[in-house]
Formats: sequence, C-alpha cells, structure tokens
Amino acid sequence: MAVSTKSDRITGILAPVLTPFDRKLASDSKRFVAFCRVLRQLDIGLAPFGTTSEGNSLEAGEKLALLDALAADGTDMGRVMPGTGTCSIIETARLSAHAVKLGCGGVLMLPPFYYKGVSDDGLFRAFSEVIQRVGSKALRVYLYHFPRQSQVPLSLALIERLLKAYPGTVAGIKDSSGELANMQAMIKAFPGFDVFTGTEAVMLDVLKAGGAGCISANANVNGAAMVELFRNWREPGAAGLQEALTAFRVATQDFPLIAALKALVARASGDQTWRLTRPPLLDLSLEAEDQLVKRLDKAGFKV
Amino acid sequence: MAVSTKSDRITGILAPVLTPFDRKLASDSKRFVAFCRVLRQLDIGLAPFGTTSEGNSLEAGEKLALLDALAADGTDMGRVMPGTGTCSIIETARLSAHAVKLGCGGVLMLPPFYYKGVSDDGLFRAFSEVIQRVGSKALRVYLYHFPRQSQVPLSLALIERLLKAYPGTVAGIKDSSGELANMQAMIKAFPGFDVFTGTEAVMLDVLKAGGAGCISANANVNGAAMVELFRNWREPGAAGLQEALTAFRVATQDFPLIAALKALVARASGDQTWRLTRPPLLDLSLEAEDQLVKRLDKAGFKV
Repeated sequence: MAVSTKSDRITGILAPVLTPFDRKLASDSKRFVAFCRVLRQLDIGLAPFGTTSEGNSLEAGEKLALLDALAADGTDMGRVMPGTGTCSIIETARLSAHAVKLGCGGVLMLPPFYYKGVSDDGLFRAFSEVIQRVGSKALRVYLYHFPRQSQVPLSLALIERLLKAYPGTVAGIKDSSGELANMQAMIKAFPGFDVFTGTEAVMLDVLKAGGAGCISANANVNGAAMVELFRNWREPGAAGLQEALTAFRVATQDFPLIAALKALVARASGDQTWRLTRPPLLDLSLEAEDQLVKRLDKAGFKV
Repeated sequence: MAVSTKSDRITGILAPVLTPFDRKLASDSKRFVAFCRVLRQLDIGLAPFGTTSEGNSLEAGEKLALLDALAADGTDMGRVMPGTGTCSIIETARLSAHAVKLGCGGVLMLPPFYYKGVSDDGLFRAFSEVIQRVGSKALRVYLYHFPRQSQVPLSLALIERLLKAYPGTVAGIKDSSGELANMQAMIKAFPGFDVFTGTEAVMLDVLKAGGAGCISANANVNGAAMVELFRNWREPGAAGLQEALTAFRVATQDFPLIAALKALVARASGDQTWRLTRPPLLDLSLEAEDQLVKRLDKAGFKV
C-alpha cells in the first residue's frame, strides 16, 4: 500500500485535493467527494485544504462541510490530513478539533501567517495553544513549512522544541521549501518525525533518507506515478520512475499551477466547471491550456 | 470635528482598535466596547480588526460579535470602518455585508494575502467579487495597502481600474507603506479618493497634499494629539504638533508595537489583562515595558 499503516501513521503519497467550485464559485461537496474517491482508488491519501486546494480561499464553515461530506461518504478518515492552519489560533483549533472528531489521521498546520518576522517563541506559543485547545491524544499535527508562500518559516529549533513539548502529537512536517538539505537535516535530527516532501522532484532522495512520503500538488493529476515510485523506490527501476515524475513537473512548472491542474482535471473529466478558481487566482486561459498540453505531450504525457 | 462629515465620508483620525482578550485569550466585547467609548469621546473614529487590532488573529464569528456589541452600545456606526479583508473572498463578503447592515461608514479591506505574486487581474477579480456579493450602494470600500505585512501590494493601476468599475463604492485607501510619495501620487491621480496615511509620521504632509486623515496604531494611545493636528493643520502651530507626534512614534518604534500599545493601555487603565496578545505575538516583557516608559518619559510623554 502506498498509504500504509506504520505504527498507525500516515505515509506515502497524499494529494492536496483540488477544490471544485460551481459557477457561483461556491465549493461543491458532491464533486469534491467524487474526486476524492478517484484519488483514494489510486491509493492516494487526501490532504484537502492545502495550498493547491485553495484552502485559505475557503472560509471555515466550508472546510467543516467538505470534511463532513467526506466522512459521510465512508472515506477512511485515517488517510485524511486536512489543512487546518489559519491566521487565527481559535479557528485553527476549531478546525483541528473537528478533524480529530471525524477520525482524521492528522492535520496539516500552517503557522499563523499574517504577521511577518514573528519569533520562534511566538510560533511555539501559537502551536501550543492550538494543541492544548484541541486537547486530544488523537491529534496528530503535521507542520506545514512553506516559507515562499506563508513567509513564516519553521526553524529546526522550533520543531525540536515542539517535539519535546508534544511528543506523539507533533508527528511530522510537509516541507514545501524544495530544499532537500533541509528535509535530510530534519530526518536525521528527529527520529520518528515524519518528513513529507512538498515536491516530487526530490522524492526518491527523501525516501532514501528515510522520509515518510510526498504531499505534492501534482498528485492531483499524476498521483498514480508517485504511488508507483513510493512502492518501488528500493527497486532498480526507481531512478527511471523519479525521472518521469520530474519530467512531468518540469512540463507544468511554467504555468500557474493550481489553475493548470484544474484545467487538466476539467479536460480529463469533461467537466469544464473544474477550471474555476477563486480570486485572487485566475482560471487558466485556453491559450495557456493548449501550451500546457503540448508541453506535456512533448514530454511524453498524454492528457 | 476631527471625524467629520464631508459628503457623508469618513475623514480624520481613526484608531485600529486594540482587541482586549481575557485570560483564556477570548475576545472580550465588554472591554472592547468600553475602550471604543473612550476613543469616541476623544473624537477618534474606530477601525477595529486592523493589523494593530490583531484582526487576522480573530475568527469571523468574533468579528461579527464585536461589531454587534458596538452597534448595541449605540455607537455612531457611520464613524466605524472595520477591517473585513481576509484570505477568503467569501468570508470578506460576509463580514463586509454585516458591516453595511450595521451602518458602518466603510470597511477597510486587505486583499486576499495568502497567495503571493498574484496579478492585478486576480486582485481586481477578488475585490470585484466581494463588492458584487455585498451588492449594496451603501458599501464603501477603503483599500488596505500594507505591502510589508500582507506581501500583496496594491498598485496605482489596480486602484484606477477599481475606481472606474466601482465609483462611489471604492472610496479610499489606508496606505501603510509609509511612503509619502505613494500617498501624494494617489491623491493627485484620483480626485475624490480618500487617502489615509497609516503612519502619523507623515500626517501633516499628507493633509497638506489633500489626504483624508490618518489611521495609525498609535491612535489607540496618542489619538488626542493626532486629532489636535487634524483640527489645526492649517494653523501656525501645526509643525510643532507634527513634531510631537513623530517624537512619540520614534519613542515606541523599537518595541513590538501591538504588545507595547497593549501594555500602555494596561498601565493607563490599571487592567493588566490588557497586556494579553494572541499568538503568534508575544506579550511585552516587563523589562521592555520599563524601557518603553523610560523612552517615552525622556521624550516628554508621561504614561
């Protein structure tokens, strides 16, 4: 299994699930649940409300409703890691508590990201308050390190402090810095701390170093190939699988990623409403879609 | 009047009202309303849920409740400009519609600030969606330009486009860039567009250029002096009043501002719970408070 049970922890490939909107830009739980089913059938875990999910473009009530819909569909919630980190520790605690109540295997937690230049003491206090407010041993926090987007990096010193204060609860991290050295350093420094790379471009290296898996935007459309590498990274063909993942990523990287992925899902499903993004993002232009498809085609990917 | 009626528009001095928390870090509407009364008695307008208010550390429900409490207290809501800009256009529209319903004179709107490097097209679309969703001629939007904090600057080209699309609705801006030249450029380029400086350090220059007023953190503790300058900026003593405002600002600028202001309010009111901030901020240390008081004392301000 790509998303396997190792001492009850989530590992493997997870998709920061794209959020489908209707023509009025309301989040559409029916298409969301259907898309999650497709991903789960490919053995891809679910990390809804991430950056790629336009998670921060959703209000709290929408996230609660989408998560409820997923649970109501009979989803194995142990393989679900919703993004719950917002600017407000109160909202973050509320979302996280709901995730725990629904049996989610973990929550992916951005630090509060409005104030910039905050101290490790302040960030420690933020995560502490949320963990204490949730107040459940079932809570598993995966820190979300995405300095380029959040502008609030999570230092190794902060992680060490959190691990000491909340062992078992602070379970791992999604590192979207793209810096392999940072991921390797965390794996080495913190045994038992599950490091997920936010880019599949370094997935093989991260797995070799002892990483837990990969949570990457492209898992929404190229997840099966990622699962393949996760299952076979010790095999002779692993380097070739990694090369193919990287080639796919290179083919998409010059396009606005979220809009591009939505356009690809629209194309694959025949449902053009999948193209819709919420502002401040823009839907992919049809011209850009043509270019994207050509680029992927040239790289050997039929979409 | 410092906060006067000029063709029904808010002008003058507004305080981004500090948000009082109780010992459990819950927002405290009773102390909030009481503090707002004090400000209003000094003829200071109210801009709750701004950066200084830890507005983004509050969840939507808290903002709605605090605003309701203010209205229930009989506040002249025409002098209230709550911050309603969040990462989600849905939440921003909800908060803005509620503000309109309560008769607020305007709303102060950050752009969605999670995604970085977004286009003017995307930002235009974001503000457009919110304005259309609120769908009220009573809505007055004051854009909130704070590039250092939000990391999403608002360009003059974007403002021009918004003004053309929504004349009367897009009413002005709070410019927290600190760049006098940017404020002067907007005043010159957009007649009838009300420019508020986010720092009192350039207040006299902004008023001379035709600006509408000042919305600054320090208005929470030094607002009366700002009102004094706003009332008398054409008088011979104006330069001296500006110097005093700047001196106060200089005396506070080496301290974490929100925590420092809360400590000063705690000191003035004798209510030490005013010192409490929400993570990721930290309360001011007592040592820092001592230094701050000494610095202010040396600059001639008794606190």
